[in-house]
Amino acid sequence: MSVTAAAGFAAGGRACGIKPDGRADLAVVVTDDRVPVPAAGTFTTNRVAAAPVQVSRAALADGQLAAVVLSSGNANAATGPQGLADARRMAELAAGHLGIADAGDVAVCSTGLIGVPMPMAALEAGIPACCAELNGPERAAEAILTTDTVAKQVCVGVPGGAGVVGGMAKGAAMLAPAMATMLAVLTTDVAAAPGVLAAALRTAVDETFNQLCVDACTSTNDTVLLLASGRTGRHVEGGSGPFLDALRGACADLATQMARDAEGATVLARIEVVGAAGHDDARRAARAVAASQLVQCSLNGADPYWGRVLSELGASGAELDPDRVSIAYGGVVVCRHGAPTPHDADALAAVMAAREVTITCDLGLGDGRATVLTTDLSHAYIDENRRTS
Amino acid sequence: MSVTAAAGFAAGGRACGIKPDGRADLAVVVTDDRVPVPAAGTFTTNRVAAAPVQVSRAALADGQLAAVVLSSGNANAATGPQGLADARRMAELAAGHLGIADAGDVAVCSTGLIGVPMPMAALEAGIPACCAELNGPERAAEAILTTDTVAKQVCVGVPGGAGVVGGMAKGAAMLAPAMATMLAVLTTDVAAAPGVLAAALRTAVDETFNQLCVDACTSTNDTVLLLASGRTGRHVEGGSGPFLDALRGACADLATQMARDAEGATVLARIEVVGAAGHDDARRAARAVAASQLVQCSLNGADPYWGRVLSELGASGAELDPDRVSIAYGGVVVCRHGAPTPHDADALAAVMAAREVTITCDLGLGDGRATVLTTDLSHAYIDENRRTS
Repeated sequence: MSVTAAAGFAAGGRACGIKPDGRADLAVVVTDDRVPVPAAGTFTTNRVAAAPVQVSRAALADGQLAAVVLSSGNANAATGPQGLADARRMAELAAGHLGIADAGDVAVCSTGLIGVPMPMAALEAGIPACCAELNGPERAAEAILTTDTVAKQVCVGVPGGAGVVGGMAKGAAMLAPAMATMLAVLTTDVAAAPGVLAAALRTAVDETFNQLCVDACTSTNDTVLLLASGRTGRHVEGGSGPFLDALRGACADLATQMARDAEGATVLARIEVVGAAGHDDARRAARAVAASQLVQCSLNGADPYWGRVLSELGASGAELDPDRVSIAYGGVVVCRHGAPTPHDADALAAVMAAREVTITCDLGLGDGRATVLTTDLSHAYIDENRRTS
Repeated sequence: MSVTAAAGFAAGGRACGIKPDGRADLAVVVTDDRVPVPAAGTFTTNRVAAAPVQVSRAALADGQLAAVVLSSGNANAATGPQGLADARRMAELAAGHLGIADAGDVAVCSTGLIGVPMPMAALEAGIPACCAELNGPERAAEAILTTDTVAKQVCVGVPGGAGVVGGMAKGAAMLAPAMATMLAVLTTDVAAAPGVLAAALRTAVDETFNQLCVDACTSTNDTVLLLASGRTGRHVEGGSGPFLDALRGACADLATQMARDAEGATVLARIEVVGAAGHDDARRAARAVAASQLVQCSLNGADPYWGRVLSELGASGAELDPDRVSIAYGGVVVCRHGAPTPHDADALAAVMAAREVTITCDLGLGDGRATVLTTDLSHAYIDENRRTS
């Protein structure tokens, strides 16, 4: 149930002083023999990519990594040339103190405030200490959190016994498609070529983390990394199959943990669009509903105000004929042919009283379907985000 | 300073019982001789267009209107065939009791809850009474409000003395481009062909109401209507000129009134993007910043957290080189070359303490520029929108 569940990895975390309140803010994940293994990554699509994203992209150019150093509290984004030098120095420090020959085999992930120089004195002291103790994956998972309230870890067995996929993630706000604002490190002990890992990771991320939409903000630092130690000796070839299933399952589990722990959220909503003209239309429609501040306000009030859902479907750009649309909350159909329909008010009240709700929108046009996770919009979300200090 | 400021129009409003709390909810605007005049309209781009939008589009097909009947409290949207029949009945009632020969010359506007059948008994009694008394434009402007806290009226003289443009509007949430969730009726006493009015209205709306972005929600009922009585006898031909200037000025004034009165807003922000690669890029970038929940939370906290602004610019899809971007709050430059820059902290604090702030984002690429109005995201916004009852 952690980033070291797969054979061949070690990890640890500690407080080094980036966060003013003394919480853990520095983590390391490393292959246990300190040699590079096949690896892959997906990164933010934001044109303002943070310095650590640039460093990690370069580290992955040869399809292998030996370690990842992660920090929280400062995103090292919008920090100019000094920020890039700082991110590179973090990789060098980790390589030096872990005994990795080439700092180019170390990825760097940072999360936190944008536009603030990295406090490098803290990292110059902290990284050696973190590398020396490697005090376990739980400490690593804690050290990457920002406004998250719980650590997020996962372990999924590869069907057929080929190995496991383990991992850890953080992500509490700025959760939006392409990608959710998040960091995740996944490890596995199957053996696979970098290209196979990259294809599988792309598919899994697209179907899981990219289906989260809490506030439609796409951050500067989003990174998901996957390292494969090959320790089980079981080889994974390309395409679909048990490994992809396990990887997808691990990512989906972490995505749900992230949505449940989204800033200030009291309700988790699954927006299901079916019957869309196509796959892209289904996604567009589901995301529009999920990202709607007004739909999120209704979720906060446990109010099944489907008129807003229909309005967002209509504004989404997806092909739509209002007369064919039906909308259900937890299976209770409240709108048919784009108009109100009689329904069991008690059953609907029971659905809305739960902490999780599924809103199903049937567009009545074709086979396109998509599901997006979102949450309600609460006072607490505003309170967490109105001041940085 | 009203929808009857231009010669040739009468108006009135009253409570007919759509709103459960007894506030005014029904209004009429009519040419004072009850004959149709040249007119134009712009409508929501939402594919779920409410029944009154469909009726008004049809009424404008011949480029003329004699009256507009408006109601608030119920949007008559997502109400199926009965909703369409109800909207048509509203036009018939107004035509019959105003003495207009053809109900096809009456436009209908409704705003309020989606997915609830219109309470037609209230309208069957209310429309005749409203048409009989025509008690003035102030009552009309009050009767179209929903969660607005103040009536919104305007009057702008056409430079050169050709006449005036007057109007009224409502709009308090779901304020988003294309179009803001709003109703507006504008009148003028210049003489102009329907095509000239339509072109001028399109331009004016595009540069004003479509530059509002409070919560990125595009409603089912958005409508802006313009009627020209021709009473001054001064003819307006096409293109730019004094009439367009006056119309644009009237729309801009109403748009600012709407933003200032947006649900729960405590801060009005003007997001200015300059130096974009093109006009469309500038708009895309400005809207992304304006619509950002996180930027809006920072505005609520009076926190000049420019990192979020830069992040939204980067995620907007606009062409961007982070190293060329600078960001200023009220003229105080806080970010240069995509990184923090020394600035006068006292001057910045003074800027953030005001109720209105301009955030200028210079992309450093070209001549594209755009301005979008937005507000902060507050507890009150959530409170107004979490329950419909």
